[in-house]
Amino acid sequence: MTFDLSNYLTERRRLIEAELDRLLPAADEPPDTIHKSMRYSVLAPGKRLRPTLTLAAAETVGGSAETVLPTACALECIHVFSLIHDDLPCMDDDDYRRGLLTNHKVYGEAMALLAGDALMVFAFELIASNAAAAPPDRVLETIRLVARATGTCGMVGGQVVDMLSEGLEIDAETLRTMHSHKTGALLTVSILAGALLAGGAPEQCDALRSYGEHVGLAFQIADDILDVTGDEELIGKPVGSDVKQDKATYVKLFGLAESHARAQEEAARGIACLDGFGARADALRAIARYVVERRA
Amino acid sequence: MTFDLSNYLTERRRLIEAELDRLLPAADEPPDTIHKSMRYSVLAPGKRLRPTLTLAAAETVGGSAETVLPTACALECIHVFSLIHDDLPCMDDDDYRRGLLTNHKVYGEAMALLAGDALMVFAFELIASNAAAAPPDRVLETIRLVARATGTCGMVGGQVVDMLSEGLEIDAETLRTMHSHKTGALLTVSILAGALLAGGAPEQCDALRSYGEHVGLAFQIADDILDVTGDEELIGKPVGSDVKQDKATYVKLFGLAESHARAQEEAARGIACLDGFGARADALRAIARYVVERRA
Repeated sequence: MTFDLSNYLTERRRLIEAELDRLLPAADEPPDTIHKSMRYSVLAPGKRLRPTLTLAAAETVGGSAETVLPTACALECIHVFSLIHDDLPCMDDDDYRRGLLTNHKVYGEAMALLAGDALMVFAFELIASNAAAAPPDRVLETIRLVARATGTCGMVGGQVVDMLSEGLEIDAETLRTMHSHKTGALLTVSILAGALLAGGAPEQCDALRSYGEHVGLAFQIADDILDVTGDEELIGKPVGSDVKQDKATYVKLFGLAESHARAQEEAARGIACLDGFGARADALRAIARYVVERRA
Repeated sequence: MTFDLSNYLTERRRLIEAELDRLLPAADEPPDTIHKSMRYSVLAPGKRLRPTLTLAAAETVGGSAETVLPTACALECIHVFSLIHDDLPCMDDDDYRRGLLTNHKVYGEAMALLAGDALMVFAFELIASNAAAAPPDRVLETIRLVARATGTCGMVGGQVVDMLSEGLEIDAETLRTMHSHKTGALLTVSILAGALLAGGAPEQCDALRSYGEHVGLAFQIADDILDVTGDEELIGKPVGSDVKQDKATYVKLFGLAESHARAQEEAARGIACLDGFGARADALRAIARYVVERRA
């Protein structure tokens, strides 16, 4: 029997979106403008890949998805904070995201800036409040790892390198480092957080961390490919924006065919890390394949 | 014997600045541009009021300043993150801060945005890593409180109300609420974090929280007064910027004399909260007086 990923992703997305809706401050709670702005971007349609990975990782080590759900939502909030700030005029200056106007196009730059700030803080509040999930030292360890994956050693650091590399020729090693920081770090910690909070043993956490690193890289290569070959309507933003901004991408460096082969290879390596988990890791295996085969 | 506040503040400032210098990523650690940008703003001259309050609160409940020092530094990082984002063109659009060019004037808007983001994340990493200070559940409680004081229920929420109130007539109650969020929440949690991590009893933490609320309000009223009467050279930025931006302030609402009386009254109320602590609270008493008498 093959794993029905489509059903799985839909069910998980609904669970996560219902929880995000429940956890976020209400749209009429003062100061309501910023709460509306936060909800606008968080509740916009999305794949919810990071929180889905958190839930899947918890189940892969034999824990329950439900207890790590608030932390999963926190990781989505961090992802959305980065999207809001990335879209600002002083960064990528994008008007559309997930098929909708970007946050600052609706709420103005100042509110978008503050909504991003507030979502990041809210994420740490959620993880710290998710104390029922695990012993407090595991929750603290999760906060440390998430903070490192978000800051200059992770996502923010990757954005800096990305920004500074615009228009420059960079080599494969630099590109890999940039991607592993910009996208890989948060994807990997989303998996690790689920495993850690659900009581995963050190060797299980190590295996899932390696899985995350490979799948994170596969995800970013696939993103680079979609920026060239993707369907604008499915992606919800104009294709070719990386080319327009002369960004360093896998496609620019290796061409489409080689990029596709590399993405497949990283996904396969990720799947190989799951050997010790048996059928419990079926969701993570299916997600690794989906990451490189998705059309948006 | 009176308490020598001047010596105390200088000694604390040096201790905090040495620790900030030690804790922040090195200026040559890649990606170095953002680390330089973070260090530029954090290590710019400052009063270090928030971290000083954290250390003083720890000692007031009988604990040691040294064990809460990393968390004290984290609170300064959150303060500086808010200054960097506040100064951005889409917010207050300020060119000078503490007598120096603002972060975005030196590093550009995109880098300033990311440096602010990185400092906030770094703050949570610091608190979560300061696990030697206290049992893990107290550290987690501190993270929850700091996150709430920073987000839309605290500082960021206050900035939203401040921004939306520009050019409007607002009443004393709204002004008080705005100030208690914008400045009071982070000052109060700086004190509470010190007390909590140093093992303060619930009634001690409650008393120090009340002290913080009064002194936080006194601080903001004094800030409003300094924006009108202050010495530009001491403050390090042009006076009159609130008036220019038609911001809601105590001086606008009550005039100088009444504002001064209210600041004094709040400081006195703060000091009254310290009755149960004896001589151990001398630093906090002196700080309450300093907050309303300072010239910058």
